[in-house]
Amino acid sequence: MSPEAANLSPDTAADSADALELARSAVQSMYGTDRASQNLGLEVLDVAPGSVRISMTVRPEMVNGLGLCHGGVIFTLADSAFAFACNSHGEPMVAAGANIEFLAPTPAGELLTALATEVSRGARHGIYDVRVTKTSGETVALFRGRCARLRLPSPSEITS
Amino acid sequence: MSPEAANLSPDTAADSADALELARSAVQSMYGTDRASQNLGLEVLDVAPGSVRISMTVRPEMVNGLGLCHGGVIFTLADSAFAFACNSHGEPMVAAGANIEFLAPTPAGELLTALATEVSRGARHGIYDVRVTKTSGETVALFRGRCARLRLPSPSEITS
Amino acid sequence: MSPEAANLSPDTAADSADALELARSAVQSMYGTDRASQNLGLEVLDVAPGSVRISMTVRPEMVNGLGLCHGGVIFTLADSAFAFACNSHGEPMVAAGANIEFLAPTPAGELLTALATEVSRGARHGIYDVRVTKTSGETVALFRGRCARLRLPSPSEITS
Amino acid sequence: MSPEAANLSPDTAADSADALELARSAVQSMYGTDRASQNLGLEVLDVAPGSVRISMTVRPEMVNGLGLCHGGVIFTLADSAFAFACNSHGEPMVAAGANIEFLAPTPAGELLTALATEVSRGARHGIYDVRVTKTSGETVALFRGRCARLRLPSPSEITS
Repeated sequence: MSPEAANLSPDTAADSADALELARSAVQSMYGTDRASQNLGLEVLDVAPGSVRISMTVRPEMVNGLGLCHGGVIFTLADSAFAFACNSHGEPMVAAGANIEFLAPTPAGELLTALATEVSRGARHGIYDVRVTKTSGETVALFRGRCARLRLPSPSEITS
Repeated sequence: MSPEAANLSPDTAADSADALELARSAVQSMYGTDRASQNLGLEVLDVAPGSVRISMTVRPEMVNGLGLCHGGVIFTLADSAFAFACNSHGEPMVAAGANIEFLAPTPAGELLTALATEVSRGARHGIYDVRVTKTSGETVALFRGRCARLRLPSPSEITS
Repeated sequence: MSPEAANLSPDTAADSADALELARSAVQSMYGTDRASQNLGLEVLDVAPGSVRISMTVRPEMVNGLGLCHGGVIFTLADSAFAFACNSHGEPMVAAGANIEFLAPTPAGELLTALATEVSRGARHGIYDVRVTKTSGETVALFRGRCARLRLPSPSEITS
Repeated sequence: MSPEAANLSPDTAADSADALELARSAVQSMYGTDRASQNLGLEVLDVAPGSVRISMTVRPEMVNGLGLCHGGVIFTLADSAFAFACNSHGEPMVAAGANIEFLAPTPAGELLTALATEVSRGARHGIYDVRVTKTSGETVALFRGRCARLRLPSPSEITS
């Protein structure tokens, strides 16, 4: 590969490879212990630093009284994508809040994909957007999550 | 009964009794076909026009990688309380969106209660607040949901 | 005053009086230096610990192209009520975010009142709800604000 | 220009030119009658169908008691960008609600720029994101607005 073909200097490329490896490892570790996400049948499709794509098939036990996927299940899919994305830098973050807009109903049997992307990231807070789509490309929901750095108790808080 | 003893005129009392009966019937009917809510083990505790209280025990398969109840499960509990409350007047409403603030973590085994109350209700839209608490009274999450009247297609839209 | 007439023990009553005095003093001090709120002609009507009521008349220069009060002006009214309420305990808090629902349009000349109430308050965060109403009692907007304790840099952050 | 050089067919190019002309005309017309936006000194920088960029300098009368731009003023800037963007297709839309995250404080004298982009647009609803930045590129606030088609009363509603 010629130098022109790569926008990355060798150092930056190595850093990027490290960041990608870290992101994959962090998400794999989270997913491996996340029984709620496993229970929904979530599948992790892509992982990059700050960005994660996952999918889920709407099962009959996920629908509400109108025969449509429960909003809480769609939120859970988006929230898992958000949690994976905001923890992909290897520093533990927890969700502080979120808002979601429901744009289209989803019957059982649909395959939903959630793509989480980083909108803002500081030392102690982050904001991530998630778009949930059907295989047709139609947007089912838009989610925006806010996370905060997991705050471990200080020694004085533990002993006092 | 003396006039002082009752704030309700006979007509209003009868209307209230009808509204209460309608609310209970509407929520019972929704819950009976809502497999997602049933699947979470939701229990309906109280129903009044515009207000519903439900509870759920956090099961081991509802926790995330930190051993805490997944935010999506807490959202689903709140969202179900909201859906029952906004449909308690007997007119079909669907969720348009919501926001949630997560205030305290919840380990498996906790009994969570969600109380939905009506904040605003018009002909085509409504806003409902839900507070999710532990048995200790600690607030776990605050949820605000927006609903819209279920819009059936008009004859011209069906034929054209 | 008989013991039955007061729900407060003498100590609690004194604490309450102190808290009320502190709230009034904190809001007066904030308002005195808040040129943006002064510029809108805000009037402080009531102050209590965690709760503030203010009002504003919609002036011709506050309307948008439809002849209705600009949503940003209504937000600013609600945001000021929120800021006063969350700072009424005497500990400096800053707004982290908010959401607002616009329920009814407001023409110029209307007197709007914003009532802020405390929904949740912890050591480092708080949530406050604000309802904006016309003199008719009609609700114009519902606002929910999130605040965080103003974080002063630690000595190590200053020196490093 | 060769056909290969343009991604647009002649018809599409003409449609695009029409849409751009419509967007500019719609925003100019809105801004011309929007006294609240004029009063803040907003300047319209760029207009395209669904996307608008505006700017504003923080004046001394826009700051709060901490000497920082009032959150309501930042919201108003974002809300105006949102209103212009969602009306840029020539169909009248009104704001239904919004949420905003405040990420960095802004002292008087700063030039703020708000870029509104279309996230979702249907026949009756739309969602727009706005990012407010300083000239340094630092993000001051993230805003997400929801709009609804302006509903004119039907003849039966007027006469009855």
